[in-house]
Amino acid sequence: MFDLKAFLAQKTQLINQALAAILKTADKPDRLLEAMSYALMAGGKRIRPILCLAAAETVDGDPRNVMPAACALEMIHTYSLIHDDLPAMDDDDMRRGQLTCHKAFDEATAILAGDALLTLAFQILSSIPINNQRQATQWLRVIHLVSQAAGYCGMIQGQMLDMASEKRRFTLDELKSMHRLKTGALIEASVCCGAELAGAKADQVQMLEKYAQHIGLAFQVTDDILNVEGDPDIMGKAVGTDARRCKTTYPALLGLAESKEFAAQLVQSALETLDAFDQKADPLRAIARYIGERNR
Amino acid sequence: MFDLKAFLAQKTQLINQALAAILKTADKPDRLLEAMSYALMAGGKRIRPILCLAAAETVDGDPRNVMPAACALEMIHTYSLIHDDLPAMDDDDMRRGQLTCHKAFDEATAILAGDALLTLAFQILSSIPINNQRQATQWLRVIHLVSQAAGYCGMIQGQMLDMASEKRRFTLDELKSMHRLKTGALIEASVCCGAELAGAKADQVQMLEKYAQHIGLAFQVTDDILNVEGDPDIMGKAVGTDARRCKTTYPALLGLAESKEFAAQLVQSALETLDAFDQKADPLRAIARYIGERNR
Repeated sequence: MFDLKAFLAQKTQLINQALAAILKTADKPDRLLEAMSYALMAGGKRIRPILCLAAAETVDGDPRNVMPAACALEMIHTYSLIHDDLPAMDDDDMRRGQLTCHKAFDEATAILAGDALLTLAFQILSSIPINNQRQATQWLRVIHLVSQAAGYCGMIQGQMLDMASEKRRFTLDELKSMHRLKTGALIEASVCCGAELAGAKADQVQMLEKYAQHIGLAFQVTDDILNVEGDPDIMGKAVGTDARRCKTTYPALLGLAESKEFAAQLVQSALETLDAFDQKADPLRAIARYIGERNR
Repeated sequence: MFDLKAFLAQKTQLINQALAAILKTADKPDRLLEAMSYALMAGGKRIRPILCLAAAETVDGDPRNVMPAACALEMIHTYSLIHDDLPAMDDDDMRRGQLTCHKAFDEATAILAGDALLTLAFQILSSIPINNQRQATQWLRVIHLVSQAAGYCGMIQGQMLDMASEKRRFTLDELKSMHRLKTGALIEASVCCGAELAGAKADQVQMLEKYAQHIGLAFQVTDDILNVEGDPDIMGKAVGTDARRCKTTYPALLGLAESKEFAAQLVQSALETLDAFDQKADPLRAIARYIGERNR
């Protein structure tokens, strides 16, 4: 039986070490770097970088070659959280069990720390020593995938729609496509980057992309469920906020029981897309199940 | 005699066409794209992309090959203006002769439009069809140069220091190094990217980098002078704002007359670094003189 807990702990440690090493390259810490580090090292679930590493292992790649991409993905995720938490957006006070960046520092510093993490992600992705053309084009392709997923046709558009969802009730299709953009795009990019950098074949990348689509949506459905019935102490952030903001959510549209059923179906579909892979896909299988059952 | 006015008009037109073409690739305009376009197409001076193209021509490169980099640089500059203008930072109402992005739209949209322009810059830089390894590594190097110049060791750190300069009086050295980061880094990157993509030799890149350092600083000194005695109608933004904010500026530290002398010296130094180049560097020479004499 595959031990997911040990796998997650080991990968999280490696990712945290790699992230800390990147931030340590600065000669002297300053307020900007402190704010970046405060947000980045606060101990998130590291789902995106773990997916990136696990996808590489699924197609027999060396996860060490993929680590810069994994770190860049977590930086982009963290920047998006810092900006989403700002007073002009979701105006949240707590994140990852600590004060949000603009509460711990100030609004200007939080905006710039987010900008700096986004920019640093692309600096990391373009800093890999290149030995051959295949490698150079692979990393260019990864930069393209990541920028597309994070950009105005992806995550940022999703955040625009998310804010709109507080003003009027979304249909189920609108809700799905909002989440596909807001969280799905970067999750898909995480899996695809890991696979591509590990030299996956086109049909393998396609199957893994489908897997990522299913778990990305499942992740969001369980996020909505946790916002209704999660434990704020375990989650490190407030619950019940969606209802207070009158946001359209899966529980609001489908009810709690049917939302849980929907999440379970998505996990099942994700597992089926992995049928063509051997036991090296066990981490991805376990992650899919974990997303369906998570409590934080 | 080289006709700078005609050169700037022609390049500005080409750059604006290229930027508009990038933004037009979206299927349907939405509020996010409108805000991005509002800020990007407001008609700035396009100094950075023009420098990028002119540096390529100086070493006999084809400016068309460099255009994606030129566009990306202008996107990054525009994003920095949008974020700098936000209420939490400089809180400015006017920019490029029109309402600032957060005034014309709203704060959340302005933050996201800035984020999206920054991300789009890297998408553009990673979208070039690659024919050979030299090209792939050149573009990776450009992404690295640009991300470094725009990031927490460059432009963003400069904005942090700029905000600090409102709180205490800077020395001349502190002021110079703040500007080297805030505006100098991206101007240097503009020149270097143009030169590198055009296949410049290492010593040529080095000379052009020095040129960029001088004009970058000259640009900032004249900016400070214009904030004292410029015409707000010509400049499209308010003047006298530095004094009201008690910001350390060159005129405040050196006096107006000595600041003008300093700017003239910097322009002269910039011209001297171009001595090794032939008449293909005439655009860069004329731009240096223009920066010393500009009124907007």
